[in-house]
Amino acid sequence: MTDEERLARVTLSRVLEPGDETGGRWVREYGAVAVARRLVDGGDPLPGVTYTRWEGLRGRAALVRPERDLERAGEAGVRYVCPGDGEWPAQLDDLGDGRPTGLWVRGRPSLRMWALRSVAVVGARACTEYGAHMAATLGAELAERGWVVVSGGAYGVDGAAHRGALGAGGATVAVLACGVDRPYPRGHTQLITRIAEQGLVVGELPPGDHPTPSRFIQRNRIIAALTRGTVVVEAAYRSGALVTARAALRLGRFAMGVPGPATSGLSAGVHELLRGEAVLVSDAGEVVELVGDMGELAPERRGPVLPRDLLDPAARRVLSALPGRGTATADVIARGAGTTGDDAIGRLYELRALGFVERHGDGWKLTRQAMISVHEGHGRC
Amino acid sequence: MTDEERLARVTLSRVLEPGDETGGRWVREYGAVAVARRLVDGGDPLPGVTYTRWEGLRGRAALVRPERDLERAGEAGVRYVCPGDGEWPAQLDDLGDGRPTGLWVRGRPSLRMWALRSVAVVGARACTEYGAHMAATLGAELAERGWVVVSGGAYGVDGAAHRGALGAGGATVAVLACGVDRPYPRGHTQLITRIAEQGLVVGELPPGDHPTPSRFIQRNRIIAALTRGTVVVEAAYRSGALVTARAALRLGRFAMGVPGPATSGLSAGVHELLRGEAVLVSDAGEVVELVGDMGELAPERRGPVLPRDLLDPAARRVLSALPGRGTATADVIARGAGTTGDDAIGRLYELRALGFVERHGDGWKLTRQAMISVHEGHGRC
Repeated sequence: MTDEERLARVTLSRVLEPGDETGGRWVREYGAVAVARRLVDGGDPLPGVTYTRWEGLRGRAALVRPERDLERAGEAGVRYVCPGDGEWPAQLDDLGDGRPTGLWVRGRPSLRMWALRSVAVVGARACTEYGAHMAATLGAELAERGWVVVSGGAYGVDGAAHRGALGAGGATVAVLACGVDRPYPRGHTQLITRIAEQGLVVGELPPGDHPTPSRFIQRNRIIAALTRGTVVVEAAYRSGALVTARAALRLGRFAMGVPGPATSGLSAGVHELLRGEAVLVSDAGEVVELVGDMGELAPERRGPVLPRDLLDPAARRVLSALPGRGTATADVIARGAGTTGDDAIGRLYELRALGFVERHGDGWKLTRQAMISVHEGHGRC
Repeated sequence: MTDEERLARVTLSRVLEPGDETGGRWVREYGAVAVARRLVDGGDPLPGVTYTRWEGLRGRAALVRPERDLERAGEAGVRYVCPGDGEWPAQLDDLGDGRPTGLWVRGRPSLRMWALRSVAVVGARACTEYGAHMAATLGAELAERGWVVVSGGAYGVDGAAHRGALGAGGATVAVLACGVDRPYPRGHTQLITRIAEQGLVVGELPPGDHPTPSRFIQRNRIIAALTRGTVVVEAAYRSGALVTARAALRLGRFAMGVPGPATSGLSAGVHELLRGEAVLVSDAGEVVELVGDMGELAPERRGPVLPRDLLDPAARRVLSALPGRGTATADVIARGAGTTGDDAIGRLYELRALGFVERHGDGWKLTRQAMISVHEGHGRC
């Protein structure tokens, strides 16, 4: 990833609307640098758009100052993660030409690592108390099982799912339909700030951009593509949460639905989904049974773990702070690693995704595989 | 069906327990008459049972007075319907050696005709208000669409389904796990009496017999086999209603479930079913879409109708009482046919199963096919 390429992608992230597959095709065929240059410097329209539309894109491009954008984002704790970066979540490539040019990210953990073991929990804004209860419980119980809870930061089901995960000391990611520096909805400013501190806030729109109806719809494809599956908690007919679930199915992910009373309009959309390919789930155990690895329910994780040498130094310090036997809380591990509790939790979820550690209630411990790799002389650092 | 065969089957219905497949195999291999004679007159045990068990069956057989049984049943308005009788519902033959030796029937309508377009609605005895509401609504709406509602006459979901159908002036069948002359549970004496007056009460146990746990379980296979599909409204884990639904699946019928809150233990069994082969249904329309004929949702029924000459005289009188155009209520039709309202409703459901009439709200009208057969000169009688 050259600086030139990154700057070109910043430009495109300000010019192209989310999910613009014509723009995505240009980037695939000519490269981001050539497309951005053609838009900024002028020239004949690229194929697939009218002259008027092309001029509209050029008008946007003329105003972009990508260096300044990156600098200001950096000052606000926001980074731009592009395809080719180490932090890029490869599963977004499944979106084909609808793949975002990049994602703006707020928060310490690695998006790529967190996305590996993540599930989306989404649903109605105007949910019932039952829906809020189910979303919060799923959020908490998925987090307790070491899963990252992804949602859209909205009122209702989304907020309850995020709060459930946060309340369990777990990992959660909010995918916004606007700039990650501008919490939307405004009433969730505190929640989204807390997610950025303890987890991740991501979005494809550059800092300062507003949400629009089509941006909400396009945001849903990111949630679907990032995660192993999407759980819809409550949704009326034609709800955006159903769009996310259908996108998940199209992308080969799991779609799941929480049942509710047949008399509830806010469960009608979920039930429609359950009459199709979606799977009915009543609790986090059933979600994990579906999206988890083979043998996920067994206490020990199978398979080889990554060599420690490939971990970044901060992750290695956290790993070293785990006790040789038994569990320790994230706070104890943070003190041992000389970092903050939030940072330690982020690293622990990454190490969990890589098979080094597992969570037991409030504590964390080395997996059997991680212990074996010590005995085999890979060494602790 | 000879008198000797019928009397032999009455004897067997007092001697063999419901679902006894060894006894069923004897009947298939040697015939009911030979098996009954061997049990009554004595002789070596038939294959597949111990000597002790055989002596137990012989002890029962010694006490049976089949002529007296039939006579007393007739006085109480109960008839014995056997395989080979015109009223025998052929779909019970799918039970193989578990097929009942016969069914005791109370009520005017033809069990065979009614079973043709029937759906089971079953569920928990100790249901919630939500479950009772859903069962009553399904019962009423299925009846309004011309479907016969079959259930077990129990408290809770079963009773609500029967009452829903009765309240809509519709057709309902209670399948009991005891003699049809002894309403069980006692608290449903009035309900079961009303079902016998307006619909049918059936069971494989002879008059006077008590229910037992195994008889309840075996009764469920009759409900599953009689109907085109079984809807479970509410059921805890290990509920008998799940036995009915699984029997339906084994017999190639549809199993359906009404969703409820994931937090409700009384929906947990239904949700377990919905995670398997059962289909989620929220209303009668979705049930009919599944179990109905092709094009069931279309206003007109397709396909040829039976020649009127094959109808029995009482059904022909009711058919003649329908107006040439437009609808009439069951009461008006009953007056025209010179019979009671209950009898007319029974006949109308039979005629519905045969494609002659259809129901519209409170009224009944001739189908297009029935009208065509008039124009083609088949004649009204």
